[in-house]
This record gives sequence, structure tokens and C-alpha cells, in this order.
Amino acid sequence: MAQTNIPSWKSKLHEIIYEADTPAGKAFDIGLLLVIVLSIVLVMLESIPGMSDKYYWQFYTAEWIITIIFSIEYMLRIIVINRPTRYIFSFYGIVDLLSTLPTYLAILGGGHNLLFAVRALRLLRIFRILKITRYIGESNRLLLALRNSRAKILVFLYAVVILCVIMGTVMYLVEGPENGYTSIPTGIYWCIVTLTTVGFGDIHPVTPLGQFIASVIMITGYGIIAVPTGIVTSEFSRASANEIPVNTQVCPYCNETKHLDKAEYCHNCGNPLNE
Amino acid sequence: MAQTNIPSWKSKLHEIIYEADTPAGKAFDIGLLLVIVLSIVLVMLESIPGMSDKYYWQFYTAEWIITIIFSIEYMLRIIVINRPTRYIFSFYGIVDLLSTLPTYLAILGGGHNLLFAVRALRLLRIFRILKITRYIGESNRLLLALRNSRAKILVFLYAVVILCVIMGTVMYLVEGPENGYTSIPTGIYWCIVTLTTVGFGDIHPVTPLGQFIASVIMITGYGIIAVPTGIVTSEFSRASANEIPVNTQVCPYCNETKHLDKAEYCHNCGNPLNE
Amino acid sequence: MAQTNIPSWKSKLHEIIYEADTPAGKAFDIGLLLVIVLSIVLVMLESIPGMSDKYYWQFYTAEWIITIIFSIEYMLRIIVINRPTRYIFSFYGIVDLLSTLPTYLAILGGGHNLLFAVRALRLLRIFRILKITRYIGESNRLLLALRNSRAKILVFLYAVVILCVIMGTVMYLVEGPENGYTSIPTGIYWCIVTLTTVGFGDIHPVTPLGQFIASVIMITGYGIIAVPTGIVTSEFSRASANEIPVNTQVCPYCNETKHLDKAEYCHNCGNPLNE
Amino acid sequence: MAQTNIPSWKSKLHEIIYEADTPAGKAFDIGLLLVIVLSIVLVMLESIPGMSDKYYWQFYTAEWIITIIFSIEYMLRIIVINRPTRYIFSFYGIVDLLSTLPTYLAILGGGHNLLFAVRALRLLRIFRILKITRYIGESNRLLLALRNSRAKILVFLYAVVILCVIMGTVMYLVEGPENGYTSIPTGIYWCIVTLTTVGFGDIHPVTPLGQFIASVIMITGYGIIAVPTGIVTSEFSRASANEIPVNTQVCPYCNETKHLDKAEYCHNCGNPLNE
Repeated sequence: MAQTNIPSWKSKLHEIIYEADTPAGKAFDIGLLLVIVLSIVLVMLESIPGMSDKYYWQFYTAEWIITIIFSIEYMLRIIVINRPTRYIFSFYGIVDLLSTLPTYLAILGGGHNLLFAVRALRLLRIFRILKITRYIGESNRLLLALRNSRAKILVFLYAVVILCVIMGTVMYLVEGPENGYTSIPTGIYWCIVTLTTVGFGDIHPVTPLGQFIASVIMITGYGIIAVPTGIVTSEFSRASANEIPVNTQVCPYCNETKHLDKAEYCHNCGNPLNE
Repeated sequence: MAQTNIPSWKSKLHEIIYEADTPAGKAFDIGLLLVIVLSIVLVMLESIPGMSDKYYWQFYTAEWIITIIFSIEYMLRIIVINRPTRYIFSFYGIVDLLSTLPTYLAILGGGHNLLFAVRALRLLRIFRILKITRYIGESNRLLLALRNSRAKILVFLYAVVILCVIMGTVMYLVEGPENGYTSIPTGIYWCIVTLTTVGFGDIHPVTPLGQFIASVIMITGYGIIAVPTGIVTSEFSRASANEIPVNTQVCPYCNETKHLDKAEYCHNCGNPLNE
Repeated sequence: MAQTNIPSWKSKLHEIIYEADTPAGKAFDIGLLLVIVLSIVLVMLESIPGMSDKYYWQFYTAEWIITIIFSIEYMLRIIVINRPTRYIFSFYGIVDLLSTLPTYLAILGGGHNLLFAVRALRLLRIFRILKITRYIGESNRLLLALRNSRAKILVFLYAVVILCVIMGTVMYLVEGPENGYTSIPTGIYWCIVTLTTVGFGDIHPVTPLGQFIASVIMITGYGIIAVPTGIVTSEFSRASANEIPVNTQVCPYCNETKHLDKAEYCHNCGNPLNE
Repeated sequence: MAQTNIPSWKSKLHEIIYEADTPAGKAFDIGLLLVIVLSIVLVMLESIPGMSDKYYWQFYTAEWIITIIFSIEYMLRIIVINRPTRYIFSFYGIVDLLSTLPTYLAILGGGHNLLFAVRALRLLRIFRILKITRYIGESNRLLLALRNSRAKILVFLYAVVILCVIMGTVMYLVEGPENGYTSIPTGIYWCIVTLTTVGFGDIHPVTPLGQFIASVIMITGYGIIAVPTGIVTSEFSRASANEIPVNTQVCPYCNETKHLDKAEYCHNCGNPLNE
């Protein structure tokens, strides 16, 4: 593919829209994020009962302005990229398209509720906001530690789910439909609510035996919350420990390593570290 | 015992049914697990009100197919093993038998509710699914760390239960039956619900003094959740720490493994490790 | 004080009743614990509505048997000790006396409810059961780690209480008595319920602003639960770390330390460790 | 500024009021804290329904005594400081003023409710009580560890909020206003209540799909509570670890302290540590 044929305005726009290294690219990113946040806040406000009737025209106008901004952004993204199809059928490409469509469809007519639901898809653009974390260096280490402990946490969650299936069935048999445990899935739902210490209280044991089993489940849940914590913490600690010997100075005389940060002389042979 | 007398087809079937090292053995395991999961899902669906009436014949047919598969599996397990009585009276043997019986008993007649309860015992076969964790290497380390901290966690849970007994009685005396604390066991149940931060809300303090005591219990529960977490985490950290230093050197004289990193002589026979 | 004047039967009984080193002392302890547990279970059962009427005579008889056992124990404790007054006015002495009185007072007449409350004091004897932990070695290390982190945890709880006082007042002003926040102490109680992630639901925010503030409180509570956990865990880890170099063997040839537990030869110079 | 012109009584009072090193300064601090606590308790009691009518005169008198004490304190603080404007417009200066005003305004007339709200501002004086922690050495280390892990915790909370926005919208679409999820903000509020394992139960899923999604949210919340805990714990552990290894050797040549345990030469001047 002849890279040199790309016009300079196109490669410049590409830099602004898809990258964030230049000041213009950063400004574009932050501006777009503000519009996304605004569009999300509008969807939220419109969902509050009474609001959409009271401020109909304000919502209508704001809706169209945001849709036009998103449409321009979408077209620009297609124009400046080398292989448009690759962007169009990517996850972000589809989300970007879906976030502009609902308003246009509303002109052609269509059920209000359905359109509202589709418009809520705009929320997925929120993932773009996650890019902010790029500016915060810490998130990488967080993700790394989580990825390392992924296998252990999955085994743990698998054991929790099996425990909930068994105890949920037991509670269904003990309490029965007359006390709110209408089916085994309901019992499992209740068991997850209890084991995770959420405890809505929409369903709760009534019989003494049920309360006793519930007590056992609660104490179990209280005890095993320690497991994921232990996994993640030991992973973080290991990551920190590997981090601690920051100082990579090596004594040029005796090859001793792991000096203190401020060390100027080798603690092993007494010769100067830097000359 | 004369191992050589066992016919080759029997030892081959034994390998497939009881072991999971060969491809055929793995396939048998996974196939069986799918049938178990299916049978559990069916029991769940049937428990939903209305479902068992609506899809009576579908449930009936699926029930019989699964029962026949389980029966064949049960008989095969008895045939291919050397000492059948040992399997029959083992935990899994009894569970396997109980998971086939209910459908047969239904022909002879019998209370629907009782049979349903017995059929729910099929859930215990779910423990076989736990064997999946065999394929995930992490679960061993998890279990080891939990087993090491078992004694400490038991002491902790013992202290929690005693605390709940005392505070539950206090709350019964303070709030009394008119506020939902109908008996001391109910008070203890409430105290466990509160201390573990579950908080159903089916019973809750009404008097100012009761609310004050509840506040103290809640803050205590919030504080001491740190204890099991601390126990498990330090165990995990220690496991991780012990993992790192032992290296894979093997003594060329006595084949002893797991030497310290800096070891130059074998700690078992005293000969040099590297020559 | 002339120690030699004590009759041998008295010192022998003292050993049995107050100590737990001899087999007889252990048997006395365990027997007493069983009676205490039984008396607690009886108090619990009697508190269940309907029970005390149905099994009046059984409760009455059991009550008297336990009271007589406790009375004999109490008198023996006074007789065999050198300075009875010291025992009588100690915490356990008063609890032991209070656990025998209610039944005797019942003969003289007296309000049933009051006597029941006094009898519940017998629960304090449960602390004697805590002595069981003496037989489990782990509890000492647990207590030590907790005692070391006591100061940090108190500072943390102090900050939590101040936060709850402020946020509880804010919620009282925002939501007001019409939404269940009838007074500032009620607001503080609600804030503790929320921050500790218990969440009874007896009181909950109704206004949008109240729900927003509640969200902030909940996320704060979710985040700062990490603090006591972090304190206790680092304390446990430190205790474990100090524990790890269990092996204190020193090589008699090169003075190398920190050998593996099973090491028979020094890993540094290859000479035998024990001769 | 001519420091020498300040009269000695002024500098002495300054020492008592603003500092806490001398016995008089400490006594002043503690006395003031007691009055603040008393004023807070009074505001709380007055908020309880019925109380302010029943004990009108007692509250009225106490109110005036406390107001006069606070007024004297406020004026003293202005007199003894060198640059009064700096104190008056500082955070504490404004809070101190606001804590005296309401009672004076009450004479001029004014809405009772508004004045009560302003008087609640007196609660902000509670921050002065936080100064107590100065006497407890542990709080500094606590704050340091929290400050070090601030960035990581913010990234985590940011991810939690985004997750709640998305899942709250999904629940609004799945359950709808007829099941209590009246708007998207309400859905987000519910999601925060659930993810943080608080679980009031004022809103809870009713449809099977909603309950399934809720189960996923709860298990997620149960799992990711490990993240802040892991962050803070590894920070505490690192703080503890950095504390342990540095020993108390002092270089006899340059008086440098905090050498590594195994150091034989000073890392600062290169001279031998032990001769």
C-alpha cells in the first residue's frame, strides 16, 4: 500500500482524531469526551418522569446538536482512515453509528420507547471515556495485577456459584413458595444476595431452620470474602516487591547490587559508586 | 490380587470411566458433566411455578432419557471396578444411586413433593463438576492456602458466634418481642445478619438504645471483617514468597530437589551441586 | 502467709477447679462448659414464644438442677481458694453469683420478666467457654496481631464516627423527618448502617439529592473498608515474616544460617550440620 | 514586622490558644473540645421530636452559655494573632464565626428551621476535634499510606462509577418504572447500592432477567472489593517493610543513619562502619 499517496491534510486529521500525542489531538479527545458526557447526562435527565414533557424543546434542540456533532465526527473518522471498512465494522465503529441513528429514525416515525432504548446505547460511548485513564499512569499496574490473578479469581467465583446453586435449592426445599422462595432460581438469587452480604430483604427466611441455614450462609460469605482479597492483595504485594529494588546501580568494584537510592559509596566494599 | 486376570475390555472401560488422562476418558468426563448440568437446569426449570404444568410431556421425556443415561453409567461403574462394594457405599456411589431412583419410584406412585425433594439430591452430583477445576492448575494452591489458615479462621468464627450469642440476647432484652425480636434465637439470627453486614431489614432496631447498640455491632462487624482477610492474605503472601526462592536444581548425587537459590552444596548428601 | 498450712485436699481441689493442667482439671473444665452451654440453650428455648408454657415442668426441673450445680461450684470455689474475698468481688465471682440467684429469688416471688433478664446474665458465663481457645494454639497469635494494630484501628474508627456524625446531620437536613430521618441521631444511625454496607432499608433516601449523597457515602464506605483490612493484614504478614526463619540451625563449620528445615548438610560448605 | 513589639501577655495567650505544646495550651484545647462536643450533643438532642418543646428553657440557657463561650474564644483569637484578617477569612475563622451567629440572629427574629440549619454548621467545628489525633502518633502513617495509594484508588472508583452508569441504565431498560426503576439516575443509585453490597431493598429486581443481572452485579461487587483492599494493604505492607530493614547503625565518620542490615561500609562517605 502506497503510504506516500495520502494527502497531508488527511494524515494531519488522522493524527488529531485517532491519536492523542499532539496538543490538537488531546484537545479533540477532551472536547469529544465532554460532548459524550453531556449526551449521557441528557439521556439520564430525559428518563426522569415529567422531565421530557416539561422541557420538550430544550431536549429536542440539544438532541439534534449532539447528533450532528456525532455525525460529523463519524464521517471524519471514515474519511481520514486508510481502510474505512475496518473501522466501520469494529466495535467502536458500530457504537459510533448507533449513537447517531436514533434521532434520524425519530423523523421517520417509530415507537418512542424503542428509540429511547436504542439511544441508551449511546452509553457505550462511555468506554471512550475510559481512555482518560491513559493519562493516569496507575491504571496499567492495576490491570496487570488483576490479569495475573484472573485464573485464581475465576476458580473462586466458580466455587461460589456452585455453593449458591446447592444452598439455593436447599432453601427452596426448606422455606418453600409460601415464604417467597417461589422457585429454585429464586432460591439461588436469594443465596447470591445473601452470600455477597448485599441483603436486599425482598426475600428472607421465616422458619427457624431457614434462619439457621441463612446464618451459616452469611458467616460463610463473611469468611470467604477474604479469598479474592487475599488473591489480589498478594498479587499487588508481589508487584510492589518486584518494584521496590528500584535502584539498579551496580558497584563497579565488587558488583554488589541493591543499593539504597541515595547511596554514594558501596555498602559492601566502600568504593564510590559513581565516578 | 491377580491384576492380570482382569479382561482387557474391562481395564480399558475403567480407564475411560474413572480416569481422565486419555482423550477418551476426558471426552467421557465432559459428556457426563454436560448431562449433569442439563439435569440440574431441568430440575430448576420444573421448580418455577406454572412451568411443570405447561411443558409436562417435555419434562417427562427429558427426565426419562437422563434417568436411563445415569442408570447405564451407574451399572457400568459397578461392572468395570474391581471391588464394586467399595464404590457402591462410597459418597459418590450413594449419590449416583439416589440420582436415578426418584424417576423409577414415581412409577410405583408416591407423593410428588417428596420425590421432587429426593430428585433435588441430584444436585449433589454437581460436586463431580468440581472435578473441572482439576484442569485449572490454580485451585490446588488456593485450597492449600485455605487449609493452612483453617485453624485461625475457625478460632475467628468461634469468637464471632459467641459475640452474636451475647449481643443477640442483649438486643432481645432491649427491643423485645413487640419490635420483632420474638426470641433469643431470633435476636442471634438478627445479630449475625447485622455483624456480617448483610442487613436484610426484616427485623431492625426501633428504640434509640437498640439503634445505638446496633451501631456498635455494625462498626464492630465492619472492623473485624479485616481479620479473616488478614489471615488468608498473609497465607497467600507466604505461599507466594515460599514459591519464589526454591529453584529447580537437582543434586547430581542423590536427586534431591528444591534447593535454596544460593545453595552450593546439596543439603541432603553434602555433595557439591555444580561441578 | 503460711502456705504450708493448707490441707492437701484443699490444694488438690484448687488444682482441679482453677487449673487445667492435670487430667482431672481438664475434665472439670469440660464438664462445667457443657453445663454452661446447656443452661444457655435452655434460656434460649424458654425465650421462644409458646415454649415456656408447653414444657413448663421440664424447664422448671432443668432450671433447678443447673442452679444447684452452679451453687455447689460457687461454694467450692470459695472454700478452696486462699483469699475468698478476692474471688467474690472479681468479675467472674460476681457473674458466678448472679447465675445462681434468679432461681432462688423466684421462690420469694418477683416479676417474671425481670428475673428472666437477670437469668440472661448467665450468658456472661459464656466467657468461660472462651477458655477453650486455650487448647487451640492459634488464638494467641491472632490476639497479638490485633493488639499490635489496636491503635491504628481506633484512629480509623474515630474518623469513621466523625464522618457519620457529619453526614448523618447533612442527611437529616436534606431528607427531613417526612422521609424517616426523624432526628440527627437517627440520621447518624442511618449513616452508620450505610457506611458499614449493612443497609437494613428501614430508612432510605427518597429525594434525588439524598440519593446522590447516599451514593457518595456508600462508595466511600466501600473504599475505606480497605483501611482496617490493610492494617490487620500488614500486621499478620509482619508476624508471619518474623516467623518464617523457623530454623535456627547454624553450620558449625562456616556459621551459615537459615538452612531448610530438613537440611542435613550445610548448603554453603557441604559439611554435616549435626554430628 | 517588628516581632519585639508584641506584648508578652499577647504572645503568652497566643501560645495557649493556638499551640498545644505547653500544659496550659493542652488544657485550653481539651476544654474547648469538651464544649464543642457538648454543643454538638445539644444540637442532636434538640433535633429529636418532642425534646425541644419539653426542655425549652434548659436548651435555651445552655445555648446562650455556649454561644458566649464561643464568642469570647472568637474575640480572643482575633486579638492575640498578628494578622487578624488572615484568621478571619480562613476556613476555621469562618466556621468559628458561623457557630456563634445563629443564637444572636434568633433575637432579631428569623425562621426557626433556617436558624437550626445554620446552627448545624457548628458541626464543622468537629474538625477541630480531629486535632486529637495529633496526640496519637499512628494517624500520620495511616494518612501517608492512604495518600500514596490515592491515585490507584481514584482510578478504581472511576471504573466503579462507569460500571454503575452502564449497569444502572441496563436495569432501567430491563425492569422499567413499574418495578421501581423510575429513571436512569434511580437505576444508577440502585446499582451503587447493590455493587457496594449495601442493599437497602427499597428498590429490587422483580423480573427473572433483572434478578440474573443483579446476581452478576453482586458477584462482581463481591469480587472487586478486593481491589481497594489490595491497594491499601500492599501500601501498608510496603510502609512496614521499608521500616524493618534499615537498622540503627550510625557511621562513626559522618553520622549517617539508616544503613542496610548487611552494610559494612557507610553508603554516604565510604568509611567502614565497624572497626
